[in-house]
Amino acid sequence: MVNFRPLHDRVLVKRVEAENKTSSGLIIPDSAKEKPQQAEVVAVGTGRRLKNGDIRELTVKVGDTILFGKYSGDEVKLDGTDHLILREDDILAIIGA
Amino acid sequence: MVNFRPLHDRVLVKRVEAENKTSSGLIIPDSAKEKPQQAEVVAVGTGRRLKNGDIRELTVKVGDTILFGKYSGDEVKLDGTDHLILREDDILAIIGA
Amino acid sequence: MVNFRPLHDRVLVKRVEAENKTSSGLIIPDSAKEKPQQAEVVAVGTGRRLKNGDIRELTVKVGDTILFGKYSGDEVKLDGTDHLILREDDILAIIGA
Amino acid sequence: MVNFRPLHDRVLVKRVEAENKTSSGLIIPDSAKEKPQQAEVVAVGTGRRLKNGDIRELTVKVGDTILFGKYSGDEVKLDGTDHLILREDDILAIIGA
Amino acid sequence: MVNFRPLHDRVLVKRVEAENKTSSGLIIPDSAKEKPQQAEVVAVGTGRRLKNGDIRELTVKVGDTILFGKYSGDEVKLDGTDHLILREDDILAIIGA
Amino acid sequence: MVNFRPLHDRVLVKRVEAENKTSSGLIIPDSAKEKPQQAEVVAVGTGRRLKNGDIRELTVKVGDTILFGKYSGDEVKLDGTDHLILREDDILAIIGA
Amino acid sequence: MVNFRPLHDRVLVKRVEAENKTSSGLIIPDSAKEKPQQAEVVAVGTGRRLKNGDIRELTVKVGDTILFGKYSGDEVKLDGTDHLILREDDILAIIGA
Repeated sequence: MVNFRPLHDRVLVKRVEAENKTSSGLIIPDSAKEKPQQAEVVAVGTGRRLKNGDIRELTVKVGDTILFGKYSGDEVKLDGTDHLILREDDILAIIGA
Repeated sequence: MVNFRPLHDRVLVKRVEAENKTSSGLIIPDSAKEKPQQAEVVAVGTGRRLKNGDIRELTVKVGDTILFGKYSGDEVKLDGTDHLILREDDILAIIGA
Repeated sequence: MVNFRPLHDRVLVKRVEAENKTSSGLIIPDSAKEKPQQAEVVAVGTGRRLKNGDIRELTVKVGDTILFGKYSGDEVKLDGTDHLILREDDILAIIGA
Repeated sequence: MVNFRPLHDRVLVKRVEAENKTSSGLIIPDSAKEKPQQAEVVAVGTGRRLKNGDIRELTVKVGDTILFGKYSGDEVKLDGTDHLILREDDILAIIGA
Repeated sequence: MVNFRPLHDRVLVKRVEAENKTSSGLIIPDSAKEKPQQAEVVAVGTGRRLKNGDIRELTVKVGDTILFGKYSGDEVKLDGTDHLILREDDILAIIGA
Repeated sequence: MVNFRPLHDRVLVKRVEAENKTSSGLIIPDSAKEKPQQAEVVAVGTGRRLKNGDIRELTVKVGDTILFGKYSGDEVKLDGTDHLILREDDILAIIGA
Repeated sequence: MVNFRPLHDRVLVKRVEAENKTSSGLIIPDSAKEKPQQAEVVAVGTGRRLKNGDIRELTVKVGDTILFGKYSGDEVKLDGTDHLILREDDILAIIGA
């Protein structure tokens, strides 16, 4: 895959296709248009920059399944697939194993 | 239950069904649509991030009964039950024993 | 009474019934709908959180009579009585003995 | 007088009656509805809270005559007289001897 | 003149009457209603308060001729003359000798 | 080329012409008017200024291919070619080798 | 020329007359009304004030040719010539030798 490095506290994610009942037991009804959505983390940013100039690693890791608010982020097509660039703070939770 | 880890200062809660008189003596009249609501804390975040990069444990714990402003948070269905993801600062109080 | 612990810098108060002339000499005319109101502090929060992660005790204490701006806070019914949850910074003054 | 302690950086003041020419030489024409007004400081707050948790005494003292922007503050009647609760930063200047 | 002490980072100034060509070579055409205006500093504040509680002397001094944005500040009449109370940060420049 | 030094945390970039399939595998469909766009970094700023006065080198380097939100930045024509001045925080990701 | 000292992080600049092709190779088409404009720095401020009270010299120097967003700053006529007072952060880049 293309070498893709989100800047600072940003994260590249790929939406997880909606299933009625996911393996992790989380159900997101497809009628609930405004509800949070699941995605998999594909790449993490170079780190959050603190006011004192230090850099802190992000909390989420590549491979994490995360939940994010539906209208967050910037869409980008990568290797033919829709992806999303989020700020880590738009991520609500890490789910699954 | 599904493994669910809210990010940073977020908290996963489950609404406590409205009763006219709760065991703890708190009454939330069902006509009062704008009033705070009770919920139980189901999972707490990875911790509040300070400006200097340190992480601080949240104040609320799993199992706490809390009061929150009705329109706070993001709704999510988990194992067939409606839950809510709040930021800890949207929690007004810890109630009960 | 129910065990009720306001979170962080919040305070639980109970309105003091309006009298034409209070014992402390403070008069709040009932026509002055926008004016500050008196209340008694019933429970204080777990403490104000500083940016560096430290916690500071609140300035007001349980039992204090305080003055607050009329439209501040969230209403909640507790043991059959109307209460209000305020942030300490919405409190204008401590009055009386 | 009633024991009245403004919270934090707040100050209790009593308007100085408008005169055409005050003893200190300051004239506030009564047609100038939007102009700053004079008041006397009646009680000062418990102190300004810094981000690091320290408390700093206010700059104004009880008895100071101050100038404030007309629409600042919350009105309160105390011992039958109209008073105003201001934040210290709404005070423009200390005037007179 | 009346004893007048601006609070904190405020400055009391007196407008310099418009001349077509000032002694310092600065011309402010009287048609340019939105343009900055000249004034003389009459009194300076008690000092800028830093977040850590320290006080810093202002940069401008009594007697400085300054330039400020026309719509900044609060007007006040002092000893029969119109003055203006500005925050130091509304001052654009110090001009003249 | 002209000597061009962006100030502080700004970056000068040149848009990468849209191709249906870029060498790095990133596809930005020309119908997606609101989607992020690719550019090459031509010059980087003098550094990000911290609150304590220190300067921090930017994360992106000259020659990096970056992705930015379409409506970010200020356009400028340089040596006959359209360029854009962005703040580094408007850059979403570094892509390619 | 008049002694003119911009306050704090402000900078006094004089617009560089538009030419179709400047010596530095930068072209700013006169139809592009919203595009950044060139100016020469005539005087720099007393320094940027940090939150801790320290002062930091500005990055731009007298004589620098700079690029700024067209609608930034306050206009002032000085020795018969139009000038502009900008905050340093409104300056996009330093150009030329």
